[in-house]
Amino acid sequence: MKKHNFFAGPAELDETVIKNTADNIIDFAGTGISIMAISHRSKEFIAVMEKAVNLTKELLDVPSTHEVIFLQGGASLQFAMLPMNLLDKKAAYVDSGTWASNAIKEAKLFGEVVVVGSSKDKNYNYIPVGWEKNIPSDASYLHYTSNNTIFGTQFKKDPDVNVLLASDMSSDIFWRPVDVSKYAIIYAGAQKNIGPSGITLAIVRKDLLDKINRPVPTMLKYSTHVDKESMYNTPPTVATYACVQSLERFKNLGGVKALGKIADQRANSIYDEIDRNKLFVSTVPDASHRSNMNITFVMNEQYKDLEKDFTDFAKSRNIVGITGHRSVGGFRASVYLSQRDDSVNALIQAMKDFEKK
Amino acid sequence: MKKHNFFAGPAELDETVIKNTADNIIDFAGTGISIMAISHRSKEFIAVMEKAVNLTKELLDVPSTHEVIFLQGGASLQFAMLPMNLLDKKAAYVDSGTWASNAIKEAKLFGEVVVVGSSKDKNYNYIPVGWEKNIPSDASYLHYTSNNTIFGTQFKKDPDVNVLLASDMSSDIFWRPVDVSKYAIIYAGAQKNIGPSGITLAIVRKDLLDKINRPVPTMLKYSTHVDKESMYNTPPTVATYACVQSLERFKNLGGVKALGKIADQRANSIYDEIDRNKLFVSTVPDASHRSNMNITFVMNEQYKDLEKDFTDFAKSRNIVGITGHRSVGGFRASVYLSQRDDSVNALIQAMKDFEKK
Repeated sequence: MKKHNFFAGPAELDETVIKNTADNIIDFAGTGISIMAISHRSKEFIAVMEKAVNLTKELLDVPSTHEVIFLQGGASLQFAMLPMNLLDKKAAYVDSGTWASNAIKEAKLFGEVVVVGSSKDKNYNYIPVGWEKNIPSDASYLHYTSNNTIFGTQFKKDPDVNVLLASDMSSDIFWRPVDVSKYAIIYAGAQKNIGPSGITLAIVRKDLLDKINRPVPTMLKYSTHVDKESMYNTPPTVATYACVQSLERFKNLGGVKALGKIADQRANSIYDEIDRNKLFVSTVPDASHRSNMNITFVMNEQYKDLEKDFTDFAKSRNIVGITGHRSVGGFRASVYLSQRDDSVNALIQAMKDFEKK
Repeated sequence: MKKHNFFAGPAELDETVIKNTADNIIDFAGTGISIMAISHRSKEFIAVMEKAVNLTKELLDVPSTHEVIFLQGGASLQFAMLPMNLLDKKAAYVDSGTWASNAIKEAKLFGEVVVVGSSKDKNYNYIPVGWEKNIPSDASYLHYTSNNTIFGTQFKKDPDVNVLLASDMSSDIFWRPVDVSKYAIIYAGAQKNIGPSGITLAIVRKDLLDKINRPVPTMLKYSTHVDKESMYNTPPTVATYACVQSLERFKNLGGVKALGKIADQRANSIYDEIDRNKLFVSTVPDASHRSNMNITFVMNEQYKDLEKDFTDFAKSRNIVGITGHRSVGGFRASVYLSQRDDSVNALIQAMKDFEKK
């Protein structure tokens, strides 16, 4: 029985992406060999990697000053790789949640970290604002987490600052057009919007690489992966293949602007129900800070004891993965770019029907 | 049309491993969700990771002093992670090929590297011997590459030394019983014997961790992954699942000793044909140094011009992936633990038939 999947990541993927990947696990591109078992140096796989790079460039309008690379280790490894490669003496960070704070922790191993803004005072239930003036002019970059998966908040546009930007876009990459020229780096674990876990997308500005005087292991240098076109060592072939399926679908749906519009409609329909329904309340008071990827909500104070009942009620309707992260509690509905409309409708209907009950 | 797959990695996997993975890409363990799209914190996936760890412990008889962890980034990232975590002042390395030499390069970033033995003088066509006496007593470990994928040579047993061992066993893990108690670490990219690319197995001795005075990023500390049972961040769920399918199969086939025996028979039948056939010659003169995983051979001098013809002849019989690495030339037949007998027989028959022609 197919479930309505609201997990925060790995998260739902489109059925065509799932089916194509399963088919190519059996026979990859008519080669008579599984995508799990074919050499990454075969011309058929090289074509897959090229597509992954080129589709990303096309969808995000990546300028020629930047390169798209595919890495392993998730955003968590990028928390260290970024400062290792690009932090000279000092960098500025916005602390908007758990992942932002983990990125800060790793950066401190490589230089001075100036936390220019934070929403920690209110358990990260808003996006810090007005911190732009706090950025030191000699900061190598300003790092922000574009979408806070755990706390359900989201930057709606590129921050306007006087240094280069660096961003963890793991949970909302491809949701909005990004002015890549303003960025030293954008990185994103694939397992929320694009593919399975085990592959990380990065877009790096080429002229910044190999400029810092610090010994960096070969595998941890961005320049290694730029020079070798993401094939310095064996890339995760299955995950790369699955990502390409999503990226092709994104292109066919009309690109980033069209994708964002669809995602916004889905998110708004759930937020509307949360605001209307007397049982539920959003955990993010300022609606303009709410994430359109991860919708976090709790039971209204007087209905707190119904939390488990609603989870069970949802489960009885095949809705899974809506338990909120332990740092927030309540519920979280993750509605990334491959979420299904019928799942969103099923959740809204369950909220309505549970209220009547 | 199913091919006879002799690629060096990613390499052939058993058809049950391929079929189970494809099926679970559609519906993972009856959850109604793809293994690509389910949370790694779901109880169903946690069970997969536990199986991966426990089957490895069982197959390699891992003592309680050691822990099994699953990482990303391939052996190439381990070349740096190992010295970053375990090299105090000095380490000893055996240079038996390209990968060994890459490991040496990374270790030099973290301390003094003593190359105790090398076979570089003869393009790595043998396993260095008699170097044990060159190991400094204060070396943190002695590193060796158990099987040299490119040059077709293999250590047949654990070296007998007075310091802890460290080994890249990417291309022959599970081929022979290993005395894990002698090792500081064993690591192996999965994409040759166990699963698809994008997952790396490591077995680390726990009491050595976090002892070196050097700042190490969280993701690059072995202790992080030991403490969090390989779930510090999102592991590659599909690759983990596929590995478990191979490991269960290995167990059902009778474990490491039985596997090694089957592999040896396969390798010997090809070596016998190379030695018998007037057209071909092994690139490794000393038979006791020959790899039972990667069989490298070239055309005999007087038949050199037939190289392309044999490749085409093999291809006409659906035999693919036998082109040798550019540093050796000629041919390489990779016959890892999941190689098929019918593929081995097809190759031998092609060699015989081409000789007649």
